[in-house]
Amino acid sequence: MATENTVTTLERMANLLRIRSIESTQAANSGHPTSCASMAEITSTLFFNVMRYDPQNPKNPAADRFVLSKGHCAPILYAAWAEAGAFPVADLNSLRKIDSDLEGHPTPRLNFIDVATGSLGQGIGFAAGMAYAGKYLDKSDYRVYCVMGDGECSEGSVWEAFWFSSFYKLNNLCGIIDVNRLGQSEATPLQHEMETYRKRVDAFGWHAIIVDGQNVTELLDAFKEASTIKDKPTCILAKTLKGAGLKGIENELDWHGKPLGDKAAGIIADLKKLVNEETLIRPEIAKITAKVAEIKKSKEIKLSSPPNYDGKKEIATRLAHGTALEKLGKSCEHIIALDGDTKNSTYSIKFHDSFPKRFVECYIAEQNMVAVAIGIATRQRYTCFVHTFAAFLMRAADQIRMGAISFTQVKYVGSHAGISIGEDGPSQMALEDFAFFRTVPNIVCFYPSDAVSAERAVELAASYEGAVYIRTSRPNFPIIYKNDEVFHIGQAKIVVESSADCCTVVAAGVTLHEAVKASEILKKTGKAIRIIDIFTVKPIDRDTIRKSVNATHDRLLIVEDHYLEGGLGEAVMAALADQPNITIAHLAVREVARSGKSAELLDKYGIDAQHIVNAIEQLIENKT
Amino acid sequence: MATENTVTTLERMANLLRIRSIESTQAANSGHPTSCASMAEITSTLFFNVMRYDPQNPKNPAADRFVLSKGHCAPILYAAWAEAGAFPVADLNSLRKIDSDLEGHPTPRLNFIDVATGSLGQGIGFAAGMAYAGKYLDKSDYRVYCVMGDGECSEGSVWEAFWFSSFYKLNNLCGIIDVNRLGQSEATPLQHEMETYRKRVDAFGWHAIIVDGQNVTELLDAFKEASTIKDKPTCILAKTLKGAGLKGIENELDWHGKPLGDKAAGIIADLKKLVNEETLIRPEIAKITAKVAEIKKSKEIKLSSPPNYDGKKEIATRLAHGTALEKLGKSCEHIIALDGDTKNSTYSIKFHDSFPKRFVECYIAEQNMVAVAIGIATRQRYTCFVHTFAAFLMRAADQIRMGAISFTQVKYVGSHAGISIGEDGPSQMALEDFAFFRTVPNIVCFYPSDAVSAERAVELAASYEGAVYIRTSRPNFPIIYKNDEVFHIGQAKIVVESSADCCTVVAAGVTLHEAVKASEILKKTGKAIRIIDIFTVKPIDRDTIRKSVNATHDRLLIVEDHYLEGGLGEAVMAALADQPNITIAHLAVREVARSGKSAELLDKYGIDAQHIVNAIEQLIENKT
Repeated sequence: MATENTVTTLERMANLLRIRSIESTQAANSGHPTSCASMAEITSTLFFNVMRYDPQNPKNPAADRFVLSKGHCAPILYAAWAEAGAFPVADLNSLRKIDSDLEGHPTPRLNFIDVATGSLGQGIGFAAGMAYAGKYLDKSDYRVYCVMGDGECSEGSVWEAFWFSSFYKLNNLCGIIDVNRLGQSEATPLQHEMETYRKRVDAFGWHAIIVDGQNVTELLDAFKEASTIKDKPTCILAKTLKGAGLKGIENELDWHGKPLGDKAAGIIADLKKLVNEETLIRPEIAKITAKVAEIKKSKEIKLSSPPNYDGKKEIATRLAHGTALEKLGKSCEHIIALDGDTKNSTYSIKFHDSFPKRFVECYIAEQNMVAVAIGIATRQRYTCFVHTFAAFLMRAADQIRMGAISFTQVKYVGSHAGISIGEDGPSQMALEDFAFFRTVPNIVCFYPSDAVSAERAVELAASYEGAVYIRTSRPNFPIIYKNDEVFHIGQAKIVVESSADCCTVVAAGVTLHEAVKASEILKKTGKAIRIIDIFTVKPIDRDTIRKSVNATHDRLLIVEDHYLEGGLGEAVMAALADQPNITIAHLAVREVARSGKSAELLDKYGIDAQHIVNAIEQLIENKT
Repeated sequence: MATENTVTTLERMANLLRIRSIESTQAANSGHPTSCASMAEITSTLFFNVMRYDPQNPKNPAADRFVLSKGHCAPILYAAWAEAGAFPVADLNSLRKIDSDLEGHPTPRLNFIDVATGSLGQGIGFAAGMAYAGKYLDKSDYRVYCVMGDGECSEGSVWEAFWFSSFYKLNNLCGIIDVNRLGQSEATPLQHEMETYRKRVDAFGWHAIIVDGQNVTELLDAFKEASTIKDKPTCILAKTLKGAGLKGIENELDWHGKPLGDKAAGIIADLKKLVNEETLIRPEIAKITAKVAEIKKSKEIKLSSPPNYDGKKEIATRLAHGTALEKLGKSCEHIIALDGDTKNSTYSIKFHDSFPKRFVECYIAEQNMVAVAIGIATRQRYTCFVHTFAAFLMRAADQIRMGAISFTQVKYVGSHAGISIGEDGPSQMALEDFAFFRTVPNIVCFYPSDAVSAERAVELAASYEGAVYIRTSRPNFPIIYKNDEVFHIGQAKIVVESSADCCTVVAAGVTLHEAVKASEILKKTGKAIRIIDIFTVKPIDRDTIRKSVNATHDRLLIVEDHYLEGGLGEAVMAALADQPNITIAHLAVREVARSGKSAELLDKYGIDAQHIVNAIEQLIENKT
């Protein structure tokens, strides 16, 4: 049992945090003070009693983690860190200002934030990743806390994370649902049905504790109980009121996302009486007790051995990816692989078989898989490679978008891209992956065309300090490069050339091999073409393309196994927009594809060798 | 109780469907016969006893619906429809062939398929939409059945649909989980823990029935029980074996997604003995008993009254959208609106308040919201407008992708796009929406820049026979157009022009208004520019842009509140790729944005009036 003194202090701290949340949102003239108010006691209890951390060194790898899944409550989170001493309290009033890192929703521009939140339902997945890392990778005793809103519990990603966390017995994970009953535009579907929440949480394998979320004593007891639970995570279901403690606003609809305006002064005055700041002795922050070993990170992130192909056998880039990942696993202890029950298709199984303890099977829940990877990758300890069919990575588009705002360095690997997969049909064919991934700021998008370059893509991906997307292909491809070929991000390769080339073709993956076939067909009629293997779709090698096009009568054909929009074609056209006099043709998929043999589909949708031949002849006709 | 005769016949039918599944996957040399086998009794019971439908008219609006969420089991679904008489059984062996509509996963190219499946975890959301339509819109007695796999139950979208369906008391919905224990690359996380499934399903408010999924009697009883349950949906938890009934393969790992090869002939011979086709009398298909009223669809889909703005007050396009939607609601009974607890921000609340019975509150579960809309929109009865922040529509990217494969005509409306939203920060700013939506084949992407065009965008969207994306904006914009201005899909508007224009600017939304401001700044230095309001980003009005650029010294500036990739800029550049001699500049967001005032952000990220002025001066300098 906590002493009365502790309880009273935490209650006073809770009201102080309410005041800070009201003040900063008043200063910003926007924000969510009422959503902050409902979680004031949860926050004061966690930050000033339960959590073991160091406000002066928030990134300490042995510290307990905190994730604010209901990111719109940033003001109270910032207030807690400020009151804990991480930065001056006066700075709180720079909330939401353009020169302040105290943004409307938390982002890791702040050193005490690990992951950006603000798209609901994602925090618990990030937290699950952190807890997985704590228990199985760091093998440390730090704990992970995540505060969720009740509204966001309608998001399926929450239940993916619940499933994952109980499956992996993450007893170091404690979720808190702030059940304040009111959503943005109306009451939440379950309102205050606490027993229904308990049933759901329990059914998903968590230990559930219902508390009055405005009651510090109950909260302290619940956190204590959570720390004793073995083999399952705990979820504290905190029954609260939106705007709790704010007179005339508490439990009222239509106060979502609004500063208190005229009502602020009176409410602050009332709260100040409860806080009585002059006599308030701020509690000491609990000391970090966990130990975390340093990760041995190789200075040079290199494959344990170079590619080793005899050039005779055709190899799928997805397989070469698996081979390279296994090699990286050998040379680098901090490489982690995740998959969503497709490991025998993406070939992450090669890593799984060699390093089972660094492989996380996430089952068929791509949103959670990406969130877990982002969570594991926080504090720059582990480098995560996430795997599934490229089409199904789109399931996690919003997590990937938020990952960009977290400046995550996760590597996304999408296999089975494009119509070249064949008979499985359009549901399994990623044809929009580059359009989406290219928007991620600073990402590198690899599209390797043979086994050698695929292995090097994986190696470069691991070294790159940012997010990466690697598109791998299902079919077997001939080997193009020698085993010692050197690759760089943003550097394309000219794979076919002569002094008589009449056109440049930019391609990658299956279309590169179709272009090579086309060059052989064209040779018979005396025409030579230059062929560029793009290697990275972002950044794009503008110079190589430009010089090549200029050297080939300013003719350019781009051919890709992707929809017409947002892929290689538009990337190249945008890069050359300032180049006058270039004649460009673009072959890409223009409609919903269907099932069929790979070669039949390449023909039907106009991206095979014969279509390349026809397009080049057309280009020559237009411009001679 | 079913008669023994019925049971025996359905058992024989189940084995006949097994045979057909093996035969067709043998002919295709790919596919998932073992996943079909586990659901053979479920399929025979549903199609030859329980479901009321008309094989000759599968689209009958009064028929029971069937959704195969585990879409990889297409072979047994096709077999059932063929054996029911929908098409010749001999056609089954065209499975996965390029000239056959019997694709690897079901798509609505087949008249008996309502929704494409094959991306797991989506079927139950589509089915929930159909059931919602049946109960609340059609007010009919048809029932909806959906067979899920156990592996896909890790997908959060499944639990979003479970939550939604119990909240709306969809007792006309019956889900069946084929718990065959084995996933693609290993056992499922819950294997045969039937009681855990029961707890989860029950906790999410469904009636749960556990059966032996290979036992026809138990299945028949369960379906009967399901039909008697009032006020909640039923989930039949069918314990099955992967490859059930296939000797040497049943319950074995490593048989996912493979034809039986050498083992096929022996297994078919064994099964044929069980079927004894010569004496098999195929059961009559249950007759349709439900009634469905015809939907009164206006011939002309028009706003009930034209836009009515005095031109003095600034209006947000999101608000004008709400106004137009409400007007459409008045003139067209088949318009339905859905929102994810953002209706007071997207302004779908205007429709909600006027037509509460045609508004579906989906709470914070965007994947399910989109799936429900796609479900409601099947059989072309209702036109659905789906609403949330554009950023959060990305949560449903995979559902939207699959919607395209379903040829759905759902209208997606994303509000709060771009950095112009201001202080809420990057998590709430859609900056990749066009990159993604533009890839959807045949979609129309509207980006209205004032209230008049926003209203017309909504009207055109409703009439368009295909999917639509409308991007609306948070800030208030001046009115540009007269109330009687006529708009067309694919037709841009020149909003500022003179005979002395030195450059064309293509813009939309907030950047259009910045361009207008820029034109006024430039005027002071004697420079005139032509400004194009793009109106639809897809299709793009190539001709208007081209003519305008040619008339303005071949100079073009594109400015957009979107990431550099995949948006308006690349759309325009791709459209003009064949135009020599054009000098192009492109202003767009190039990094993760932050919180701040809208105007400050437009400045910081380089897309405001002054940056437009600077870019134009640069363009003129380069090319005079």
